[in-house]
Amino acid sequence: MEFMLEEFEPIASQYPVLLFDSYGVIKSSKGLVPGIERTFEWLKAEKKEYYIITNDASRSPKQLAQGFHKMGLKAIQPERIISSGMLAKEFLNLKVRKGKVAYLGTEDSAHYIEHRGLEAVPINDLTDEQMQEVVALVLLDDEGFDWVSGINKSVNLLRRRAIPAIVANADGAYPVSSHDVSVAIGGLSWLIEKIVGKKFIRFGKPDAQIFMFAWEILQSRFPGIKKKDALMIGDTLQTDILGGNKFGLDTMLVLTGNTLPQDYLTRIMGTGITPTFICHAAVVER
Amino acid sequence: MEFMLEEFEPIASQYPVLLFDSYGVIKSSKGLVPGIERTFEWLKAEKKEYYIITNDASRSPKQLAQGFHKMGLKAIQPERIISSGMLAKEFLNLKVRKGKVAYLGTEDSAHYIEHRGLEAVPINDLTDEQMQEVVALVLLDDEGFDWVSGINKSVNLLRRRAIPAIVANADGAYPVSSHDVSVAIGGLSWLIEKIVGKKFIRFGKPDAQIFMFAWEILQSRFPGIKKKDALMIGDTLQTDILGGNKFGLDTMLVLTGNTLPQDYLTRIMGTGITPTFICHAAVVER
Amino acid sequence: MEFMLEEFEPIASQYPVLLFDSYGVIKSSKGLVPGIERTFEWLKAEKKEYYIITNDASRSPKQLAQGFHKMGLKAIQPERIISSGMLAKEFLNLKVRKGKVAYLGTEDSAHYIEHRGLEAVPINDLTDEQMQEVVALVLLDDEGFDWVSGINKSVNLLRRRAIPAIVANADGAYPVSSHDVSVAIGGLSWLIEKIVGKKFIRFGKPDAQIFMFAWEILQSRFPGIKKKDALMIGDTLQTDILGGNKFGLDTMLVLTGNTLPQDYLTRIMGTGITPTFICHAAVVER
Amino acid sequence: MEFMLEEFEPIASQYPVLLFDSYGVIKSSKGLVPGIERTFEWLKAEKKEYYIITNDASRSPKQLAQGFHKMGLKAIQPERIISSGMLAKEFLNLKVRKGKVAYLGTEDSAHYIEHRGLEAVPINDLTDEQMQEVVALVLLDDEGFDWVSGINKSVNLLRRRAIPAIVANADGAYPVSSHDVSVAIGGLSWLIEKIVGKKFIRFGKPDAQIFMFAWEILQSRFPGIKKKDALMIGDTLQTDILGGNKFGLDTMLVLTGNTLPQDYLTRIMGTGITPTFICHAAVVER
Repeated sequence: MEFMLEEFEPIASQYPVLLFDSYGVIKSSKGLVPGIERTFEWLKAEKKEYYIITNDASRSPKQLAQGFHKMGLKAIQPERIISSGMLAKEFLNLKVRKGKVAYLGTEDSAHYIEHRGLEAVPINDLTDEQMQEVVALVLLDDEGFDWVSGINKSVNLLRRRAIPAIVANADGAYPVSSHDVSVAIGGLSWLIEKIVGKKFIRFGKPDAQIFMFAWEILQSRFPGIKKKDALMIGDTLQTDILGGNKFGLDTMLVLTGNTLPQDYLTRIMGTGITPTFICHAAVVER
Repeated sequence: MEFMLEEFEPIASQYPVLLFDSYGVIKSSKGLVPGIERTFEWLKAEKKEYYIITNDASRSPKQLAQGFHKMGLKAIQPERIISSGMLAKEFLNLKVRKGKVAYLGTEDSAHYIEHRGLEAVPINDLTDEQMQEVVALVLLDDEGFDWVSGINKSVNLLRRRAIPAIVANADGAYPVSSHDVSVAIGGLSWLIEKIVGKKFIRFGKPDAQIFMFAWEILQSRFPGIKKKDALMIGDTLQTDILGGNKFGLDTMLVLTGNTLPQDYLTRIMGTGITPTFICHAAVVER
Repeated sequence: MEFMLEEFEPIASQYPVLLFDSYGVIKSSKGLVPGIERTFEWLKAEKKEYYIITNDASRSPKQLAQGFHKMGLKAIQPERIISSGMLAKEFLNLKVRKGKVAYLGTEDSAHYIEHRGLEAVPINDLTDEQMQEVVALVLLDDEGFDWVSGINKSVNLLRRRAIPAIVANADGAYPVSSHDVSVAIGGLSWLIEKIVGKKFIRFGKPDAQIFMFAWEILQSRFPGIKKKDALMIGDTLQTDILGGNKFGLDTMLVLTGNTLPQDYLTRIMGTGITPTFICHAAVVER
Repeated sequence: MEFMLEEFEPIASQYPVLLFDSYGVIKSSKGLVPGIERTFEWLKAEKKEYYIITNDASRSPKQLAQGFHKMGLKAIQPERIISSGMLAKEFLNLKVRKGKVAYLGTEDSAHYIEHRGLEAVPINDLTDEQMQEVVALVLLDDEGFDWVSGINKSVNLLRRRAIPAIVANADGAYPVSSHDVSVAIGGLSWLIEKIVGKKFIRFGKPDAQIFMFAWEILQSRFPGIKKKDALMIGDTLQTDILGGNKFGLDTMLVLTGNTLPQDYLTRIMGTGITPTFICHAAVVER
C-alpha cells in the first residue's frame, strides 16, 4: 500500500548523505523533537554526511548552531548549516557589490549583508535622502523593526527606485505554539510585492538554488556524489518535499511539525506533492 | 479622436445625478482640490442630486463630513456620503446579528459595528478566551492598532474559527503625499487572507454592492430613475471607473489623484478599463 | 451543535421567497435531483415566490426552461430564471450600445448579445480587419468554438484594443459526471486575463450584481420586501453561499452537488463560508 | 547615466563564457536576427565558450539545432543547446523512473520522456483505465493535441491521482508575428493548476535549476570557472534577466525580441528587474 508510515533508521541507513530541515524536524516551538539527540549520535557513529537546510535568515549559521547547543544538541556545528540568508548574501556579493542596502530584520540578521563595500541600513533608520542611494532592499526577518513604518518605507522605496528586492526567507508563516502561527518575513514580502507590482527575488526552499548551494559544498567534499545518494528530510510538503523532489532527491516527510499524523494523507492527495518515504519522526529508535 | 480631455461642466450638466469619489476627486493629501468649492456651489444652483461614494471606512459619514467642513467645504452633509463601512454595517446587522465582533481599525471606525446585540472588540484587546466567542472579524482601517499583534491575532483567530472576515475598504494603498503611499487595510487583508487561505468578504468599489446601496437611496427619492441618468466621477480606473462601468453607469475619469495627466492613456490601454469621459478635474470653470 | 443537518420543508416554510441555484440543486449530470418535482408542487401549493439564479450563460432563459421541461420538471417558466448572461446583456445595452461584439460560446449563448445596434461575431469568424471594429469581447460558454484559435484570437484582440472583456459565467469548471469536471468559460477567462494582464468584468454568483438583478424584480412585484424574507439555496460554498451571505440573505447549503455529505464540515471550516442552514437536499419529504 | 545603450562586442569580449537565449536574441518570428551569423563567427574566432539556454521544450536539442541550420546558422551544435525539456527529462529519470507518463505536446516533444522504464502516452490517447496507471503528467508544448479534450483530461487525471505534474516550458505566451502572440504550454499550465488547486513543478528560466544544469556542464569542462566569468544575454526581463541575476551572473538585455527599444526603460522601472548591460542586439558590428 502507498503512503504507509515506515521506520526512520532502516531508510536513513541507505543514504550516505542526509539533509535535514530544522524547524519541525529537529526542533519545534516546544524545544527539541524528543529523541533527536540519538539521531545525531547515530549520524556520527555511522559517519554519515549531513547538513541542515533552513529558510531561517534571522541569524547567522553560528548563532543558529548556538541555539541548538543551548537546547542541548551539541553535535551541530555552524558549517553544517545552510540558511537561505547565505543565498541572499551570495547574491549581494555577486550582483550588488557596493552601496547602501536597506533591510527588514533584526540586527543579527544583518549578518548576511556584511561585506566590504556594502553598508546595511535598518529600514526604520532610512531617511528620505538616503532612499536615493540605496542599491538593494533585503527582507531577512519579521522582527527587529516597526511594521507600520518599515512596510510603508519599503513600499515607497520600491516605488521610487528600480532596485532589486531580495527575500531571504520564502515562508509565509511559522508556528509559535502547537496551534498558533506568526506571519514570517516571506508573508510580509507578498504584501509589499503586491502593492508595488514588482517581482521580488526569493531564496529558500522550495527554490532549487538553496539545494544547489548545498550540493556544491557536497561535491567539493565528495567528488562524484550523485543525487540518489542524498535524502531530504522535512516536515513541510510545499517547501522541503517539493523542493527536494524538484531537485531530484529522494525525500522523507516527517510528522513532527507542519504536517500532522491525522491529515498527512489528505495533504498529499490535495497538493499532489508526494514524498518518497513517510516517517513519524527523524528519530532513531532506542 | 478617442480619449480626449473634455471640460467638466458641459458633461456634468447632462446628468441629473452625479456620484463623486472622495480622495483624488474632492480632496487630496494636500487639501481640497483647487476650485472644487465652485463645483458644489454649481451643484446646488443647478439642483443636481449628488452623493460621495467612498471606500473610506476609517470614520462615520458624520465625521467624514466634518473633515470636509474643516477643509472649508461646508456643502457636504453626512447623508450625502456613502462609505464602504456602511455596507459592512449592513452585513453585520443582517447576517451576524449578535455577539462579539473583533475589529482592526481606529475607535472611530468601530462606529460601523455599533448595533444592539453586537459588541466591538479591538483586535489588540482580544484575549485567547474571547477568541472562542467572536462571531466575526471586521477590517476597517489600517490605523488604531499595533500591526504585529493585530495581524497575527487575526491570522490565528481565523485559523481557529470558521467565522466571516469582512473587509470594509478594498483599497490596497492610499496616497499620503504627491509621490508616497501608505498600505491600506485592504492591503493588510490580502496578507491575512493569503496566510489563512480563506475567502474574505469585501465591500467597496469596484464591487457592485456599494453602487446598489447608493442606487436604492436614489430610487426611494426619485422613483423611476434610470442608470443613464447618473455619472460616476473618479480618479482610479480599477475602483471608480471599473465599478461604475460594471454597474452600468456612465463614468468620468479625473486626473487630480491616482491617475496622472502624463500616463492616463497608457493606463487605459494597459488595463482595458475605459471611462466614458476624461476631464482634468471635477471642477466647474470660473 | 453547529452545522447539523436539518430538514428542508420546516426551514423553507419560514421564507416567502426562495432562490434556487440550478446545477447541483435542481438537476445534476445524472438528471433531476430525485424528488425535486415535489418541491416545485409544494412551492405552488404554498404560493411561494421563487427564482432560479444560475451562472449558466450557455442558453437563454427560455432554452434553460425547456431543458427542465424535457427532464420532466414542467413547473419552471422562463421568467423564473435569472442567468448571469442577462447581466452581461444589460451591461452591453447600457455601456456598449452599438458595434461588433466578438463572443466565445455557442450560437445559443449569443442570444445575450441580441440587441439593436449590436452585432454578434463568433470569435472564430473574426477577421484581422474586423478586430479594429470590435467594441467588446464577451465570454459566454466553453462550447461552440475552436479553443486554440478562439483563445489565441481573444488574447491578441485584447492586446491590440482597449475594449471591455465581459465574462458571463464566473465558474471555473462544472461537473460532467459523478467524479469528472469540464473547464468552464470562467476558467478560460482566467487564462486569457492572466496572459493579457487586463481586468475582466465578471457577472454571476458570488458577485452581488446578479442578486441585485433578482432583487429589483422582486421589489417591483412585492414592494416592501426585505432581505430577511428570502432564502438562497445552493450546493456551492464559494458562489451560492458566499454570494447570498454577502448580499445579506439567509442561505441554505444542500449536499446534492459540489459539496459532498462526507466533507461539507471540512469545507465550511476550511473556507470560513458558513451557511445559515444545511440540508441533505432541497426536497420536500413525501 | 544609468541604462544607456552600449555596444555588444566590447562588453562580450570581457567574458570567457556567453549564455544566449534563443527566441528574441538569435531568431524571431521573421527568421534570424540580422547579423547574428557574425556573432557566431566571432565566438569561434575568439574561442569563446557559449550555450543556448532556452525554455523551448517542443523539440530535442538535435531538432532545435537543425532548425538553426535550416535558417542558415550552421554554427550551433546540439550539445550547445540546453532546453528546459532536459530538466524535465532529468526529473523523470531521477524521480519517476518507470511507468506510464501522460504528456501534452507534439510527438517531437515526447523525446524528453524517452527513457527505459518510461512509456510516453499522448494525453488524447489516454483511456479512463490507463488513468489509474499513469505516474506523472508532463506539459511539453501547446501543439500536438486537441486542447478541449487534452486540457479536460489533464484536469481530471490530476483530480483523481496524486501524481507530479511537470511543466517543461514556463513561458505563458510566445510571439508569432511582430504584434501577435500565441498561448504557450506554460499558460495552459496556469489554467489547469488553478482548476485543480495543486502545485506544479516548473522548469525553465527564471528558475535557477536550468542555469545550474548549464553550470554543471561548464564546471566539468572548465574546472574553477566563476560566476563572474559568464554573461547571460536575453530579450525578456522576467525570464532571462531575472533568472540570470538571481543565479548571480552578469546580464545583458537586448532589444530584438520581447522588450522594445521604445519601452525598455519603462519596463525596467516598472518591474525593478535590472540588467547589467543593455544592447540593441547581440550582434558584432561589421
